[in-house]
Amino acid sequence: MPTGTLLYAQSGGVTAVINATAAAVLQAARARRVRVLAARNGILGALAEDLLDASALTATEVRRLAHTPGGAFGSCRLKLKSLAEDRAKYERLLAVFRAHDVRWFLYNGGNDSADTALKVSQLAAEYGYPLTCVGVPKTIDNDLAVTDCSPGFGSAAKYTAVSVRECALDVAAMAETSTRVFIYEAMGRHAGWLAAAAGLAGDGRDAAPHLILFPERVFDEADFLARVDAVVKRVGHCVVVASEGIRTADGRFVAEAGGQDSFGHAQLGGVAAHLAARVKDALGHKVHWALPDYLQRSARHLASATDLAHATAVGRAAVEAALAGQNAVMPVIVRDGDAPYRWHVDIAPLARIANHEKTMPKGFIRADGYGITAAARRYLAPLVAGEAYPPYGRDGLPDYVQPKVPGVRRRLPRWQA
Amino acid sequence: MPTGTLLYAQSGGVTAVINATAAAVLQAARARRVRVLAARNGILGALAEDLLDASALTATEVRRLAHTPGGAFGSCRLKLKSLAEDRAKYERLLAVFRAHDVRWFLYNGGNDSADTALKVSQLAAEYGYPLTCVGVPKTIDNDLAVTDCSPGFGSAAKYTAVSVRECALDVAAMAETSTRVFIYEAMGRHAGWLAAAAGLAGDGRDAAPHLILFPERVFDEADFLARVDAVVKRVGHCVVVASEGIRTADGRFVAEAGGQDSFGHAQLGGVAAHLAARVKDALGHKVHWALPDYLQRSARHLASATDLAHATAVGRAAVEAALAGQNAVMPVIVRDGDAPYRWHVDIAPLARIANHEKTMPKGFIRADGYGITAAARRYLAPLVAGEAYPPYGRDGLPDYVQPKVPGVRRRLPRWQA
Repeated sequence: MPTGTLLYAQSGGVTAVINATAAAVLQAARARRVRVLAARNGILGALAEDLLDASALTATEVRRLAHTPGGAFGSCRLKLKSLAEDRAKYERLLAVFRAHDVRWFLYNGGNDSADTALKVSQLAAEYGYPLTCVGVPKTIDNDLAVTDCSPGFGSAAKYTAVSVRECALDVAAMAETSTRVFIYEAMGRHAGWLAAAAGLAGDGRDAAPHLILFPERVFDEADFLARVDAVVKRVGHCVVVASEGIRTADGRFVAEAGGQDSFGHAQLGGVAAHLAARVKDALGHKVHWALPDYLQRSARHLASATDLAHATAVGRAAVEAALAGQNAVMPVIVRDGDAPYRWHVDIAPLARIANHEKTMPKGFIRADGYGITAAARRYLAPLVAGEAYPPYGRDGLPDYVQPKVPGVRRRLPRWQA
Repeated sequence: MPTGTLLYAQSGGVTAVINATAAAVLQAARARRVRVLAARNGILGALAEDLLDASALTATEVRRLAHTPGGAFGSCRLKLKSLAEDRAKYERLLAVFRAHDVRWFLYNGGNDSADTALKVSQLAAEYGYPLTCVGVPKTIDNDLAVTDCSPGFGSAAKYTAVSVRECALDVAAMAETSTRVFIYEAMGRHAGWLAAAAGLAGDGRDAAPHLILFPERVFDEADFLARVDAVVKRVGHCVVVASEGIRTADGRFVAEAGGQDSFGHAQLGGVAAHLAARVKDALGHKVHWALPDYLQRSARHLASATDLAHATAVGRAAVEAALAGQNAVMPVIVRDGDAPYRWHVDIAPLARIANHEKTMPKGFIRADGYGITAAARRYLAPLVAGEAYPPYGRDGLPDYVQPKVPGVRRRLPRWQA
């Protein structure tokens, strides 16, 4: 039986299935009789020695956790800088790890977290402290390198495609006397992966979504408005999916075009709101728009079964890799075939992942810049396949759990950043 | 076997289950061997003699229609005025009905549609034309009189409660270093029924949603901001659900506070965007907000089984009432018990429904004005109970249908409004 403690932490924006990864970690560690601590609010809890005794969760709680969205132990947005710049913080992490006999550190996040896990492993080596650091992939942005896709993305993609298909039917019914243009704002500051997933809602020239706006392409307002008008004339209505990250030729985010409200207060941005106002002003069409925001990344009720399987597999593989002493690595999804979809988990060095960003292949965006290609469909389709409903109570609501996890007694003096 | 044709039309905003009502109408009429025409885009198609031969749909298409959101034959927003003011339109309707031997008219909508159906029945009586007019209830606003609830509301309510529960878990995980306040905008211009349904997401002082803003209460910004801040201090984060229809003491819609963007264009309103900016400016908390808009009324993927049963039952009952010659009536839902929930369909005169509006009982809003009472929970809970998933394809998307319904040859000269 391995001796020591495994520390698990979640990082960055949470997803519909990150807790499924956490549950898989807990189950795999339990099977190997390894104690698991969780850092409260990610790396912040590790710095503050604010640790939770995750091994105290019952098997039932862990099973319920596996179908609960959000981040059960809390997450945070905190990027550690280089070992030189943030040395005090890295050394504090190592002190906390020593104090709690942490021998395995699993950091569940995106690019930044992979970088942090790598640096912690380097510092531990420098100090001769026996620590195995494993990154666990997670991000709805799907921008992690090496892995074919990122757990969390498939479920957000399914939510996006289903929601766009549904609201498109609504608009089609209302267009004759009411709303003619509908704009759906998808997350994606740098890459248009989620906007691309909306393309799965329909195929063919007249099928919604009629126009997709990618951050990979310069936003040209005149061209956009002309296309909206042409679609309305041809189809009767127009459904637009806009990435929050689209920019004009001068590099300015369209979402930042928001000004002040009538009280003189700053109006928070929003691509869809801005585009809706432009369509209404310039073309005169009645417009509606939707901004699902966190709904798209917490919609566990509409999780993709493929995504859930990935999230579970990387959690299990991370524990196995850690206990086998595979240091500074991350389990990744490898695609073995599109149709039928086949995949397996491989182990990749963190150095190949940290601070790299996977962009969308050029061949995924249609030549006109407003839709996805067959290659994109082949890539995306398996990721949204399969339904994985959470159980519902008799009250008609999903049976989500917010487990009360006991804290671990501090062994070190309080830490001041 | 009854002779003549049944005309079915959808009106106003569509819902996740109005097509289930349409499917029930088609199935019930088919069982009685009655031919069904549908008006394209609601009453507009009836005026324009733009009719569809709904009886041509196959049994399979009708079954798929029953789980498809939106309005299969198109809907419209067109309120007919009094018989005196809009006499030419009413007479045109009667001419179209005569030309196609329409003996039964089923109008599937809200208050306005009930009024129109009533007036058409009055005109037919005046002219001695044998016509039976039946209203069929539908509205996510839940503001129809007499009926205990309106088909369409339960599914939108379930979407709202589930979405708020999900995004609340997301915010809870992020609050330490990122988003502290989340604002969800619910439909409801005059009545806060959907905002109230969000209250089902949690119960107890510290459970999300922490604050609900109802159009039934005057919006007091200072009080609201103080409460948001207090919740953030106590719980660590705050989830707000705001009805789009909230107003300040001077009667002004908060949603209309939107001004101009930096290009000088009008910014379309939005309660959540406005409140988010105020929270950020006044309290300094990081804020996110969501505006689900049409998503909340087209989310057939998350339909309430109770709502679906209601929508199906009123469609069937409407056909039975019509064929039995019950004129100027509407099938309504009668509640026989809360827990266990029991209900049946009754037939009510349109005169008791047309142009009445059901408001939310005062006893449903908590004394402090920011939450729902136990009485509201008792009323709302059964309406969101039960899951009724649509079938999904192997592509991971719901199997929705947009049936191609053949048009009916015109028999009258074109009509100019």
